[in-house]
Amino acid sequence: MDHARTISKDTTLCISLAARPSNIGTRFHNYLYNELGIDFVYKAFTTPDLAAAIAGIRGLGIRGASVSMPYKEDCIRYIDVMHDSAAAIDSVNTIVNDDGTLHAYNTDYQAVVNLLHDNDVPADYSFAVAGSGGMAKACVAALCEAGRTDGIVIARNETAGTALAGKYGLRWQSDLAEQRPQLLLNATPVGMDGGPEASALPFPDEAVEAAEVIFDVVAKPPETPLIRLARGLGKTVITGAEVIALQAAEQFELYTGVRPSDDLIRAASEYSRS
Amino acid sequence: MDHARTISKDTTLCISLAARPSNIGTRFHNYLYNELGIDFVYKAFTTPDLAAAIAGIRGLGIRGASVSMPYKEDCIRYIDVMHDSAAAIDSVNTIVNDDGTLHAYNTDYQAVVNLLHDNDVPADYSFAVAGSGGMAKACVAALCEAGRTDGIVIARNETAGTALAGKYGLRWQSDLAEQRPQLLLNATPVGMDGGPEASALPFPDEAVEAAEVIFDVVAKPPETPLIRLARGLGKTVITGAEVIALQAAEQFELYTGVRPSDDLIRAASEYSRS
Repeated sequence: MDHARTISKDTTLCISLAARPSNIGTRFHNYLYNELGIDFVYKAFTTPDLAAAIAGIRGLGIRGASVSMPYKEDCIRYIDVMHDSAAAIDSVNTIVNDDGTLHAYNTDYQAVVNLLHDNDVPADYSFAVAGSGGMAKACVAALCEAGRTDGIVIARNETAGTALAGKYGLRWQSDLAEQRPQLLLNATPVGMDGGPEASALPFPDEAVEAAEVIFDVVAKPPETPLIRLARGLGKTVITGAEVIALQAAEQFELYTGVRPSDDLIRAASEYSRS
Repeated sequence: MDHARTISKDTTLCISLAARPSNIGTRFHNYLYNELGIDFVYKAFTTPDLAAAIAGIRGLGIRGASVSMPYKEDCIRYIDVMHDSAAAIDSVNTIVNDDGTLHAYNTDYQAVVNLLHDNDVPADYSFAVAGSGGMAKACVAALCEAGRTDGIVIARNETAGTALAGKYGLRWQSDLAEQRPQLLLNATPVGMDGGPEASALPFPDEAVEAAEVIFDVVAKPPETPLIRLARGLGKTVITGAEVIALQAAEQFELYTGVRPSDDLIRAASEYSRS
């Protein structure tokens, strides 16, 4: 089964916009459209001109657009309604076109909020977030949104690190040193397949041993060195694969109004990476 | 076989723009993409904003757009290169996006030129064209392009009729009266399925009997009352179905660089109407 789509004039188009499109979203959404019998089709695009691409979303009645690097902030000027999830971090990863009105969301942020909640991570946990990029911003905002205040941003880039930490009244450090937070969250590429630090850990072993919850946003491989270590130690773990699947499910629901079952999300997620 | 398409990030999108999209183009092109193994997908769109839709063609790298009523003239202002077929009648039915440069063609005009040539219609034939709309303009231009000068435009609308006739040095008449041209071409909806004159003839019986070539641009039904009468009389006939198939094949070749065989065009054409 190759999940081919039959297209008619009435088929609704959703797209993604990225400088370097991957096939993951295209495969994920089309798989679910087929499984659920929804007359939509999804295709990744890149663009030489973001304003023109967004004009096209309006002009062609494209229902939704997933937004990736480097457009997540630049697209805000074209949005009609910024929803809380996007406004919280000034970053958009999902545009919904409601009869010509463009609504913006950030389902990465929403997914992190939901995963922290679903895993019963206490609101008074101390935490450290490694990273200062877009995903780190979403994670820090999600942690603080639940009232957490005892946090450290670990970043090599002092400017970005202090800016992010300062925004939420947290501390910046270049490394974790002797602290032992209850929650460790990795939002750097450390541990990512094919990266220069694929076999490294973003936190010292001792900190992982001392923590209660380990959250890694790296999704490839499904089990990073950090997650493997934490699982071996019996910690509560939250993985990047969970973030990606959940944010994609949120996006799917925003576009179609249909919420796929967890099993279907898992199958679509596996298919999208195969 | 339902001619489903498997979409990836690399699949090339072609579209149509019309106030009231039909499914014919979507079915025709997707059928051929599948049969020929070309990684394209085609979908009809309408738009509330032509400028935004055409911005979208550039901004999303959409390869081609078929243009229907009421955009065939309005779109000219957004075109970078007007090719002869579109310039001849100031009407565009095909836009090709060549790395951000928009080229415009009129494959209806080109199809009529080619069908007159392929059927060896002599350049000195007298002719009458019934109609004064967009298709009539394409037909009159195609007839005159081959050097024909002895022609009449038959139109109820005197303003449009005299304008069209005057542009090419022809005569306008509200009906054919006693003339007996060698070529009769119908570019009105007379004889069209579901129209108010579905069973009528656009020319008097006597004129059909006296003519050598009968050309009807009405494509539905495949055999109009005019074509049926002409066939019964052993005349050379050129049908609207041939115009549509040929113009679509030209369009297909402009978008993909591939020219389908006549058999494949016929099969796609039948499929598109089924």
